[in-house]
Amino acid sequence: MNNLSQFMQEYQPLIEKEMVQYLEALDCRPEIKDAMLYSITAGGKRLRPLLTLAVVQSFQGEIQANELKAACALEFIHTYSLIHDDLPEMDNDDLRRGKPTNHKVFGQAMAVLAGDGLLTTAFEWLAQIKLPAEIKLQLIANLAQAAGPAGMINGQVGDILGEQLKLTLTELAAVHHDKTGALLVYACEAGGILSQATAQQNQALRAFGQAFGLAFQIYDDILDVVGTQAELGKAVQKDADHAKNTYPGILGLKGAYQALEETLQAAQQALNQLAQTGLDIQLISEFLKYFKM
Amino acid sequence: MNNLSQFMQEYQPLIEKEMVQYLEALDCRPEIKDAMLYSITAGGKRLRPLLTLAVVQSFQGEIQANELKAACALEFIHTYSLIHDDLPEMDNDDLRRGKPTNHKVFGQAMAVLAGDGLLTTAFEWLAQIKLPAEIKLQLIANLAQAAGPAGMINGQVGDILGEQLKLTLTELAAVHHDKTGALLVYACEAGGILSQATAQQNQALRAFGQAFGLAFQIYDDILDVVGTQAELGKAVQKDADHAKNTYPGILGLKGAYQALEETLQAAQQALNQLAQTGLDIQLISEFLKYFKM
Repeated sequence: MNNLSQFMQEYQPLIEKEMVQYLEALDCRPEIKDAMLYSITAGGKRLRPLLTLAVVQSFQGEIQANELKAACALEFIHTYSLIHDDLPEMDNDDLRRGKPTNHKVFGQAMAVLAGDGLLTTAFEWLAQIKLPAEIKLQLIANLAQAAGPAGMINGQVGDILGEQLKLTLTELAAVHHDKTGALLVYACEAGGILSQATAQQNQALRAFGQAFGLAFQIYDDILDVVGTQAELGKAVQKDADHAKNTYPGILGLKGAYQALEETLQAAQQALNQLAQTGLDIQLISEFLKYFKM
Repeated sequence: MNNLSQFMQEYQPLIEKEMVQYLEALDCRPEIKDAMLYSITAGGKRLRPLLTLAVVQSFQGEIQANELKAACALEFIHTYSLIHDDLPEMDNDDLRRGKPTNHKVFGQAMAVLAGDGLLTTAFEWLAQIKLPAEIKLQLIANLAQAAGPAGMINGQVGDILGEQLKLTLTELAAVHHDKTGALLVYACEAGGILSQATAQQNQALRAFGQAFGLAFQIYDDILDVVGTQAELGKAVQKDADHAKNTYPGILGLKGAYQALEETLQAAQQALNQLAQTGLDIQLISEFLKYFKM
């Protein structure tokens, strides 16, 4: 078992526990609490908070309770985005992580509100954590920017608009840069903010997050072609059926693998820059093993 | 012309200008920017930011540029909630302030995203304003709590669940307390936070906001019975058509006017408490003239 597997085994349950505790303590109607808890406990790798925590661990050699909470707030944002993306008016998905999507269980109105609730609660949580005020404000500003109309939402808009069009590789990369990349970049830089990293280190963390995010999306596109529903817990070959713009669609499968390879090299390069600042990049670099080829 | 009319005439255009400037400067696709700008510029009294600013004016005798911005962020939250409330899966409204609702113009998917965008951007804005860090964090925490699952969203859930039920007066008051009240309470206390009011003053501000919010909802229910579409800029008698729980529905029209009168007295009482702390309540108390009987 490598470092990352151990790290994930330790922190995945802690992340889930923190999130459930926070939601359980909210003074709200059971109907909205249940809808939020359903999607928060529906599984998932917790990749984004894990990235934040791995950066913190690499910088500081340990993770404080309040840094764990700060990482969890990001998973609320990610989960809200999945609930809204799955809505009938958006991607209209019935399955997510092998389970019925939020609106399939709770209805469309409650799914909109559960997403709104998680989005709002993420900022409430960050504002209340016991961390220095300036660190919290930087996290809130950067997270809102990454998740907002200039980040993730911009990517979702690009995705919707692109449905009726044949995108070029550059246009597709721009959509992914926002839609998947922005939150993964934030995940990495949040670890740097929490660790009071230097500007140079934060820049390398963002570069790593950007390359990691792009690799993540290319890999997801490839899996949709070569994976099975049982493996992925969601419908496959959906992209081709919907004439979605994908890397394999534009570059062919071989070309997509090639693009993935190059993107992973860019990620490794960013890590090498971090290593030159004296950081132990062992744990973070193991995230690149996610992309098994 | 009374003080409040002058105050509104001065600040309504400034509020709109600030909001438009912030959205215009966002680095995002024109489609999402247009959808957000459409609802932000679709009119409205700007009651919530005006309340915040009136409290600031009463405490400090003037309003700084950064306090104006902080007040405007609240209007982003209010506007997002209107966009999502109007969605087909929620209240399914075609008209808002005399204009087609957001999803009628931009489609349902873009309306969900425009709401998400304004909600997220409100926190980005608050985090970046040039104000002391502790004040910003308190604003962010309180706004998220007021707008979140324990506040406005809880009220919206109660509203949806109540549609199939006949609510008691207490249950209806609880729905309104969250749905309309929470943001109005925040509007008042935000002015106190910005002015570094005492705990006693903040409590009186919250009490005023609570009574004002309840009066606001009772008045809205009454207007739906006695008003015309031309006056209100939206469909009327919609509540009765949809067998909605309303104050006139439970208490009769005369009873609803009586409840409004009592609520306004509670609001005035909170203002008297503020006056006893030495605050000039003239401007704030003129907000109660909103409820013309």
